[in-house]
Amino acid sequence: MPAVSRRYFFALLAISLGAVACDSARAQQDPLPSWNDGPVKKSITDFVAKVTTQGGADFVPPAERIATFDNDGTLWCEHPVYFQVAFALDQVKAMAPKHPGWKTQQPFKGVLEKDMKAVAAGGEKGLLQIIAVSHSGMTTDAFSKSVLDWLEIARHPRFNRPYNSLVYQPMLELLAYLRANGFKTFIVSGGGIEFMRPWVEKAYGIPPEQVVGSSGVVKFQMGADGKPVLMKEAKVEFIDDGPGKPVGINRFIGRRPIFAFGNSDGDLQMLQWTTAGTGARFAGIVHHTDEVREYAYDRQSRIGKLDKALDAAKAGGWTVVDMKKDWKEVFPPAPATIGRSP
Amino acid sequence: MPAVSRRYFFALLAISLGAVACDSARAQQDPLPSWNDGPVKKSITDFVAKVTTQGGADFVPPAERIATFDNDGTLWCEHPVYFQVAFALDQVKAMAPKHPGWKTQQPFKGVLEKDMKAVAAGGEKGLLQIIAVSHSGMTTDAFSKSVLDWLEIARHPRFNRPYNSLVYQPMLELLAYLRANGFKTFIVSGGGIEFMRPWVEKAYGIPPEQVVGSSGVVKFQMGADGKPVLMKEAKVEFIDDGPGKPVGINRFIGRRPIFAFGNSDGDLQMLQWTTAGTGARFAGIVHHTDEVREYAYDRQSRIGKLDKALDAAKAGGWTVVDMKKDWKEVFPPAPATIGRSP
Repeated sequence: MPAVSRRYFFALLAISLGAVACDSARAQQDPLPSWNDGPVKKSITDFVAKVTTQGGADFVPPAERIATFDNDGTLWCEHPVYFQVAFALDQVKAMAPKHPGWKTQQPFKGVLEKDMKAVAAGGEKGLLQIIAVSHSGMTTDAFSKSVLDWLEIARHPRFNRPYNSLVYQPMLELLAYLRANGFKTFIVSGGGIEFMRPWVEKAYGIPPEQVVGSSGVVKFQMGADGKPVLMKEAKVEFIDDGPGKPVGINRFIGRRPIFAFGNSDGDLQMLQWTTAGTGARFAGIVHHTDEVREYAYDRQSRIGKLDKALDAAKAGGWTVVDMKKDWKEVFPPAPATIGRSP
Repeated sequence: MPAVSRRYFFALLAISLGAVACDSARAQQDPLPSWNDGPVKKSITDFVAKVTTQGGADFVPPAERIATFDNDGTLWCEHPVYFQVAFALDQVKAMAPKHPGWKTQQPFKGVLEKDMKAVAAGGEKGLLQIIAVSHSGMTTDAFSKSVLDWLEIARHPRFNRPYNSLVYQPMLELLAYLRANGFKTFIVSGGGIEFMRPWVEKAYGIPPEQVVGSSGVVKFQMGADGKPVLMKEAKVEFIDDGPGKPVGINRFIGRRPIFAFGNSDGDLQMLQWTTAGTGARFAGIVHHTDEVREYAYDRQSRIGKLDKALDAAKAGGWTVVDMKKDWKEVFPPAPATIGRSP
């Protein structure tokens, strides 16, 4: 190789290596690859840059970087019914052989005959009966096992995937991005705290002690073997929804979040509580607009109704995610093998 | 210097440097300098070594290294009265000018006249009245401020030091030692959660979201300025004491501790719950045996009664700290200057 062409060759090599390096750096730099570029994604990255810039006017010390997320409809799918309701219905079916009376007794009869009209006719009282039998009269350990057993075999009716694989890929990236920037991520959900804790650590990287949710009364009892157990009773203790969310945040976290994400009117007060604090604050809403890849619903929906919170978002300049437009992917690829820890 | 003596000199130098290095290493190696050597200290360091040894039979992954500590009498002093009661009494005095009727109305009259016999005559009902007026009817933010204001000016009657400087030096070392070994440290106290959170992070390095305690009902309200507040109501919500401790641990942490420390019968169930788990477990009790440096009390004490838990400790082989014998120091040196964050 003559000297000139050699220099030319190495110059080309250097340029191409440089280009590769740049591409690679760019790929590494995008912490939210499943989010399409645009004002929504930018509002998130701008906020994180702002509160993590040392010496900046909006800097927030890591200990105060509390981020709270609703679960149903915000981190995972909530249609056609809340997944916890699907669990309760399946539990009734599984428990039926030991309860022959249920064959003639509503709302259980309706569940066993898949007559959802009869179940719905039982209203809230009927649903509470279903929740009660499936969520109480057992130890906390036994309940946790029943949730994990169910996740292993139950499949979503439309997507035919395990329920805990129907988490939103863009939100997984957001959780990881926030944690990489010193945030502590919490779930603040109307769902049952004992229903979520067995699986959320593997699904979202959120440990059980960072889960706030609704709860039933639990009692300490000394077992016959001299070993204590915690028994779940059929009595509601706390509903972590609507105005209950700031109350739950206060009780469990004891600090006001600087970042919160929800998707329905049940999240309105959490978002209000978050944004009412001093300093930089972020409020986000997932707007379900994609009936092809997931579901489209808002003001008229029975599940995940988004009406007042959508108005508040517009008035307050909150970030509203248009699922169809802002999300490149909705769910992670379907798991190749289904195991206890998908 | 002749060659031989030079070699001798350098050999001596090496030996003495080595000795210095060893001393320094030894000093660095003792993570619990305020604990006297002996079986109690050894039981702690042996346990930590055991659960943190990769590949060992008792290894526990960091995420499961949950350590829970009672507060009153375990992390800070609880005599002559629970410090939260001292706070409530002082609050009544501070609020009295706005409540002229208290001059003639028990138990407030007794508080204002320092007639503790009259206050005691009011029994639990009287105490609850005192707690109610000092702990409710205000926002969570206002209450937090009242606690910090009080800590700044109030002094312990015997030690004449700020209450939050009367924390136990050996326990501060233990908390730091556990955290350095991947443990997550929690407070699980019968004391009020809102009373502890404003100051425990600075005192113990335990953030508010790792505090479990008793609580009153809190309500979300929209303020006249359109900003939401959380109002503290005069209604007990949860008592985190006795059998309530495992319940509180289950609710807030959602994992069973592998390490727990208490000092009274109110901690018995927490210690039972902890040790009933599978794998290596540690249960510890601070036995107050030092009336010279602090207080001596156990089976007959009205405050911090240690009776059944002492029997359980003996039966179960738990670690019982003899304060007089096992602790080199009780409190940290008195703070040179008293500020908002001692």
